[in-house]
Amino acid sequence: MKAILGDGDGGVVIRDVADAPAPGAGEVRVTMALAPVNPADRMLVAGAYSLAVAHDEIVGAEGVGRVDTVGHEVAGLLPGDRVICLDRGNWTQQRTIAADRVIRVPDALADPLAAVLRINPPTAERMLGKGDLHPGDWVILNGAASMVGRLTVVLARERGVRTLCLVRDVGAAAPVLSNLGADAIIADDGEVPQRAAAIIGEAGARLALDCVAGEASGRLAACLGHSGLLMVYGNLSGQACAIPSSLLTGRGVKVRGFSLRPDEGRAARAELQPMFARLAQLLADNPAIVPPHTVYPAARIAFALDHPGPGRALIALDRAAWT
Amino acid sequence: MKAILGDGDGGVVIRDVADAPAPGAGEVRVTMALAPVNPADRMLVAGAYSLAVAHDEIVGAEGVGRVDTVGHEVAGLLPGDRVICLDRGNWTQQRTIAADRVIRVPDALADPLAAVLRINPPTAERMLGKGDLHPGDWVILNGAASMVGRLTVVLARERGVRTLCLVRDVGAAAPVLSNLGADAIIADDGEVPQRAAAIIGEAGARLALDCVAGEASGRLAACLGHSGLLMVYGNLSGQACAIPSSLLTGRGVKVRGFSLRPDEGRAARAELQPMFARLAQLLADNPAIVPPHTVYPAARIAFALDHPGPGRALIALDRAAWT
Repeated sequence: MKAILGDGDGGVVIRDVADAPAPGAGEVRVTMALAPVNPADRMLVAGAYSLAVAHDEIVGAEGVGRVDTVGHEVAGLLPGDRVICLDRGNWTQQRTIAADRVIRVPDALADPLAAVLRINPPTAERMLGKGDLHPGDWVILNGAASMVGRLTVVLARERGVRTLCLVRDVGAAAPVLSNLGADAIIADDGEVPQRAAAIIGEAGARLALDCVAGEASGRLAACLGHSGLLMVYGNLSGQACAIPSSLLTGRGVKVRGFSLRPDEGRAARAELQPMFARLAQLLADNPAIVPPHTVYPAARIAFALDHPGPGRALIALDRAAWT
Repeated sequence: MKAILGDGDGGVVIRDVADAPAPGAGEVRVTMALAPVNPADRMLVAGAYSLAVAHDEIVGAEGVGRVDTVGHEVAGLLPGDRVICLDRGNWTQQRTIAADRVIRVPDALADPLAAVLRINPPTAERMLGKGDLHPGDWVILNGAASMVGRLTVVLARERGVRTLCLVRDVGAAAPVLSNLGADAIIADDGEVPQRAAAIIGEAGARLALDCVAGEASGRLAACLGHSGLLMVYGNLSGQACAIPSSLLTGRGVKVRGFSLRPDEGRAARAELQPMFARLAQLLADNPAIVPPHTVYPAARIAFALDHPGPGRALIALDRAAWT
């Protein structure tokens, strides 16, 4: 069978690899259907991630497929079940994986939505969970037109929490974000602290979610109220987070990073299934959470990696997609 | 009587003010002896502090004196007791203050050491208390030749915790810091992360104490191990803390500020007395913790505020010092 591997030189290569073996005890074999190109995939391939990609390692952080064979001692999974895989190595025709590391997704959720269920939705959900949020509180977030941003808006609204969305292009982002329930949408520029104060009021935001870093971190932090939390989860600017110390010493602002992998640890299926069921329903109910996407056949992986946007590149992984 | 007040224009003025009244119930009157010029005093006078100085407010964050009169309903304080005052307003000949806001200091502790007991020692003590430190752990600190730095070295050593001291001038600082028990002393420059790794090893430091901010924050943070804490308590550089986001997201580094006032809240004497007794003994046993000082009479307050160092300016507040 064919799979996509890191070439050790910042790119990828399509290779013939050994077929995925028949599943042993506690395992299932999954025939893959569709995978997104996650920013983490690009970083991993480029050698810029916190994890190194092993030589001859199949890449792909996310992906959806169908169980084709179930090994012994596996409960709750049947051939034909649609699943997402919780471990990397999804850019392949088939994979054999511990049953505990797959999550069933309802058929109601289309493949392009299921393919992006694994990372962004739990990221938004878990970050909100760390904010000590109560109904009426404000969350401020930059890069808000992203999928994590859109999810944050919807998930915050479910909690009765209000969102102040910072975006580069208000005209483009406002219709989508308003529709998802954003409370305010403003441009992410030097005027943010003053405009945020006018919207949120003196108490300030309780939680700030930062995927930009650099000067943007300081702008967000300045919108937090006393002992508010700035959570950094991305670095679109490529700069170090610049945070005025008076916000730390005088206002008690706290700064932390968020990364999904250490946060979820090696949680097993039984523990994760309820959260993913809820998040799958959320995506099914609000398809506008997922930005528009382009599907490339696996054979065009180089184009998919270069995908200039807008929206996300998906890779078709079915048998026909490799030639 | 005379006192030193902010002039509302970035400086101070010596004024005749109403005598401190006879103490009422739960109060004592203190005849002041000596007060340091704390960096916080300079900031407050200059209007650069998180608190504003009220019009006609007597300044002075620290000071030592002797109780001259005790009001009703005061237990545990007698005329003649040497005390430090926990509230601002120390740059005066006399003050009347709630008995709960003064701390007795042993006569064994000379006035110049007692005068600086209120802020720096509890700052070092409380910051170390937030580091989740265990014997054998490393603390890294910049500005280590300062009084807070020296205290940190001694207090860490008491806990079996090791200290890596960053200083501007290794030749000048090393003898004092080594003598106080520092485990390693290096220059605070761009090579810090590599040299710290060679000293501390892969596990990294558990706690970093930052009084410089700017690029120095990132250097310190890079020396922390997984989920280590960067605690910012000063801003000698005048720059925003620049912290690479990968340390937050990939290494779980946390960033917080420390400020004494909110941390101790309005703790009462009974609660604080044991800590101050211990810290007073520490200063008495290790007088090298307190950098050299220069005493100015109160009448020369303008010179004291301009004091170029080295060491600290103290202000004599006895009757003769005002003319």
